[in-house]
Amino acid sequence: MRDVAIVGAGMTRFGELWESSLRDLFVDAAVEALGSAGADHVDDLYVGNMSGGQFVGQEHLAPLMADHLGMAGIPATRVESACASGGAALRLGYMSVASGMADLVLVAGVEKMNDGADVTNVLASAADQETEVYYGITFPGLYAMIARAHMAKYGTTPEDLAWVSVKAHRNGAMNAKAQFRREVTVEDVMNSTMVADPLTLLECSPVSDGAAAVLLAPMDQASKYTDRPVRIRGIGQATSSMALADRKDLSKLDAVALAAERAYKASGITPRDVHVAEVHDCFAIAEICCIEALGFASEGEGKNAARSGMTALGGEIPVNTSGGLKSKGHPVGASGVAQAIEIFEQLRGEAGERQVEGAHIGLTQNMGGSGASSVVHIFERV
Amino acid sequence: MRDVAIVGAGMTRFGELWESSLRDLFVDAAVEALGSAGADHVDDLYVGNMSGGQFVGQEHLAPLMADHLGMAGIPATRVESACASGGAALRLGYMSVASGMADLVLVAGVEKMNDGADVTNVLASAADQETEVYYGITFPGLYAMIARAHMAKYGTTPEDLAWVSVKAHRNGAMNAKAQFRREVTVEDVMNSTMVADPLTLLECSPVSDGAAAVLLAPMDQASKYTDRPVRIRGIGQATSSMALADRKDLSKLDAVALAAERAYKASGITPRDVHVAEVHDCFAIAEICCIEALGFASEGEGKNAARSGMTALGGEIPVNTSGGLKSKGHPVGASGVAQAIEIFEQLRGEAGERQVEGAHIGLTQNMGGSGASSVVHIFERV
Repeated sequence: MRDVAIVGAGMTRFGELWESSLRDLFVDAAVEALGSAGADHVDDLYVGNMSGGQFVGQEHLAPLMADHLGMAGIPATRVESACASGGAALRLGYMSVASGMADLVLVAGVEKMNDGADVTNVLASAADQETEVYYGITFPGLYAMIARAHMAKYGTTPEDLAWVSVKAHRNGAMNAKAQFRREVTVEDVMNSTMVADPLTLLECSPVSDGAAAVLLAPMDQASKYTDRPVRIRGIGQATSSMALADRKDLSKLDAVALAAERAYKASGITPRDVHVAEVHDCFAIAEICCIEALGFASEGEGKNAARSGMTALGGEIPVNTSGGLKSKGHPVGASGVAQAIEIFEQLRGEAGERQVEGAHIGLTQNMGGSGASSVVHIFERV
Repeated sequence: MRDVAIVGAGMTRFGELWESSLRDLFVDAAVEALGSAGADHVDDLYVGNMSGGQFVGQEHLAPLMADHLGMAGIPATRVESACASGGAALRLGYMSVASGMADLVLVAGVEKMNDGADVTNVLASAADQETEVYYGITFPGLYAMIARAHMAKYGTTPEDLAWVSVKAHRNGAMNAKAQFRREVTVEDVMNSTMVADPLTLLECSPVSDGAAAVLLAPMDQASKYTDRPVRIRGIGQATSSMALADRKDLSKLDAVALAAERAYKASGITPRDVHVAEVHDCFAIAEICCIEALGFASEGEGKNAARSGMTALGGEIPVNTSGGLKSKGHPVGASGVAQAIEIFEQLRGEAGERQVEGAHIGLTQNMGGSGASSVVHIFERV
């Protein structure tokens, strides 16, 4: 397999983007990514998108996007793994370059959620329709059960959860692309509307529109496009039981742990080597469970990470310097690619106020549904 | 890149399968494919599916399918390219093995269309939502315009169209997995209900449930699973303008021609070398346009192929020996994989009454929407 590098990136602002359609969002991000690398054509395209069909009545997205980018003709494939669609697309783009099938490959994630659809019910189609959704539960309820399990087993408190959101908003306030650019306090979070006990409104990621795109090239051709390529050093993807009822321990995210194990093995990196990480914080409890599964905190200790400053900027392992899904926003199919862009910028020293000094190894962890799928990428500054 | 072979296959019957859910269909096909090769585990899974979200309220299909197959943990990715989803999934499975990312890979296609959804409108989401569907057109209308263009340019007649369906049903009557196992006459076809002038009911593929699965392995490990592997010799994937209004010539399917050109180049095969082909006959006119784009008939001459017997069993280039989408059925996400299974069986000499004598090179051509995406695979008996 050939070594693969990210050589360009572009993304829209995340938020309620009423003036842009699904295809507009994609084109904006893709044009920025191409322009950043001085490229005007690609050999292959992968588009991560959870539910264009349900959100805006549009399937068959990949040829439509290629067409609207002015590249009708190129191979183009849409990938779906619920909220991990972007991460799954990035893995396929990597495979396309690594295998030699293509040289220059565009990987994009895009979602248009604010367009009239019943968002909570569309998102619920990423859970088990027959054994969960049919009985009325949606994602805040599923993650609330995960949170309750973590509380019961490890003594995690509502305040521990609130600190995750406080950290996210502190970082997001410094990100010009973020949906919510304001800091919040522990009191703000704990006093916000209860959505699904114990998760409050400010512990749930928002409904967002947005797109993100990265350009991949073989490492040995990267210098044609940039003098600061970021190498994809290893990837792990995994699945677990779909329904929470089929899991042995609700407080553990097996697919995340397994994807991380594979990515660490593929890259020869350990959790202690990672300088900065973007982690799938769709709900505050998710970040706590994920940093345990990734090995950044030991079992049951994830609850202390945000409160103690361990995962803050300047901490031992800064997590979600972009603001994460909570503050940056969560256009579901785009999030996995946007995570890679934050790490790309961090490893190139371009993260401005959010820069993690000396970062040269970064990690992204993207997750679908209540954790039935996860993709972990490890990146390296070269 | 490593050479890749199909080493096992399985599929459900296609039809109105009221007793089986989406996940049941997948598991039935997957278990048969695994069993045929004596395998009980795979390293990677790709699932082609057009619209689980809109048809049955289920996205995030790939981890669900892995879970229900008893393989929770493996990487699993769902791919969508409308009715070319199965072909797109097969290409990704090929990439996974060819790149060395995985050894044994399962590729499945599945669709559950008979479950209460408004099928015509769901399918229409594979056309351009903003410039076509919004104004009320659906696929029979789009293909009727393609047919009218072919008639105007080349003098194609309603009877030419009818012959395509007559041939499909003649072949499908011999296929135990086919949805419609009865022959029809030119008169039956021409006298059936007009759906979108000039396309009659018997010139339109049906609404179907079903699943199909193939098992891929590196060529040099194939003998562990079968003594008759079928090598994937070349692949081409391409896109074209999404909206018919953006195409120069409605009677031509540019994405099919381009995908074919790429597959022929990758495999060193010419149209004259192909002994048997499965072609995307979602409507009778589609088969006529596709065999021209594939180079089996010259421009404007595709109209004569079914009537003359050129594409019949025993003809110069037998097309859709399985019965095609028209007679075998068209569970949209499954069709691309089912095409590969027909060729797999033909090249192994297992097609029974439908066997093309001496076939050792086969081709499949799968297409999305009104032809904005297409995937062509070329296979070889080894």
